[in-house]
Amino acid sequence: MEIDYSNIKVVGFDADDTLWVNETYFRDTEEKFANLLDKYETKNKIDQELFKTEINNLAIYGYGVKGFTLSMIESALDLSNNKISQATIGDILNLGKEMLSQPVELLDGVEEVLRKLKDHYRLIVLTKGDLLDQERKLEKSGLSKYFHHVEVLSDKKEINYTNLLEHLRIPVSEFLMVGNSLKSDVLPIVNIGAKAVHIPFHTTWQHEEVKLKEHQNGHLTLNTISDLLKYLNYGN
Amino acid sequence: MEIDYSNIKVVGFDADDTLWVNETYFRDTEEKFANLLDKYETKNKIDQELFKTEINNLAIYGYGVKGFTLSMIESALDLSNNKISQATIGDILNLGKEMLSQPVELLDGVEEVLRKLKDHYRLIVLTKGDLLDQERKLEKSGLSKYFHHVEVLSDKKEINYTNLLEHLRIPVSEFLMVGNSLKSDVLPIVNIGAKAVHIPFHTTWQHEEVKLKEHQNGHLTLNTISDLLKYLNYGN
Repeated sequence: MEIDYSNIKVVGFDADDTLWVNETYFRDTEEKFANLLDKYETKNKIDQELFKTEINNLAIYGYGVKGFTLSMIESALDLSNNKISQATIGDILNLGKEMLSQPVELLDGVEEVLRKLKDHYRLIVLTKGDLLDQERKLEKSGLSKYFHHVEVLSDKKEINYTNLLEHLRIPVSEFLMVGNSLKSDVLPIVNIGAKAVHIPFHTTWQHEEVKLKEHQNGHLTLNTISDLLKYLNYGN
Repeated sequence: MEIDYSNIKVVGFDADDTLWVNETYFRDTEEKFANLLDKYETKNKIDQELFKTEINNLAIYGYGVKGFTLSMIESALDLSNNKISQATIGDILNLGKEMLSQPVELLDGVEEVLRKLKDHYRLIVLTKGDLLDQERKLEKSGLSKYFHHVEVLSDKKEINYTNLLEHLRIPVSEFLMVGNSLKSDVLPIVNIGAKAVHIPFHTTWQHEEVKLKEHQNGHLTLNTISDLLKYLNYGN
């Protein structure tokens, strides 16, 4: 089935791992966290416990680095039976601060794609995470000038997208979402009747993974963001 | 000088300590935090150190409970020279979680004012803090139905307001902001040429305090939100 993009007027881009590297920083930090705790547990068990703590805390902390840092501290206390040293807690606080001051590394082709599309579509950023941190990354990225609108959402479920499109007065039939997460950027979009392009990143957070059988038809999967230019019109 | 509100079409409300109690929860938590640390320092010194840490971290953590919790942990390590017990760090994590699950206590008159104004003005909420936490409070408050739009800002400076009014296509001359913070809700608004009403709350976070000489003319100060009804038209 050929998908028809001729109605599309607005293209929404996920940010983390779609425009710039993100998950890699989380994985690096998890590695450092496991090293700090290696006298108490195996790396495997530490990873599992941290993930469990993050998921337990998701409803009150939401997404983003600050909640992740709080969950690391909680896991460190649990995994060590409150034996983790105070200095190590300080190290964990610093891991979080480092993440919040990371440079922003654009993914290949991103800037060219945005530059070519920007006069032909209304481009928006739709991301979740800490509000201030996402604003910081967008500013550091130098990409702000390509976007009409930036929205940081507390979650990316169907209702969040529906409300946002309504608020921005974007008809569902004119909206295309581009992102690396099937769970957050693709499935809810297809379910509300809009179009979605999936561009996998080499690393996906376990929480964002969905089983293949849950996939639905109706979205396109591309290897790189540059491939978007084969499907959208941008003059020339 | 009588202020003329006849042009006003959109009324923006700050949320914390304007619609509902907030600062009180921070003060209660600071009190509990000081008790946890009372063998290391005086209450005064603990308060000062925590405030200093919060301000130092503001640029990377931003506003809200999660950053506040991280700053409490950092201060606890500093104030105790890394002697604070691991169990107490766990207690501090729980203080943060308690704040994120607090009930929402509306201030007197809020619901009546919103109900009377809602058919005559476009009402919006403009708040700063953790995105998810502000959404949670708005939902718990039962006030969502009165608002056309809710915006959580990373800060409330002139540029944030200017961008938002532009984005929502609200002319400056038609906008009135209502809030408890001179620094965040009143001065930047008056400076961009919009109108502001100041309704002081009995408790103000030190960071939000401004000296009297910095005040500017052109805003109205009211004792309670109900007094707004004397200045705005709502039929009857």
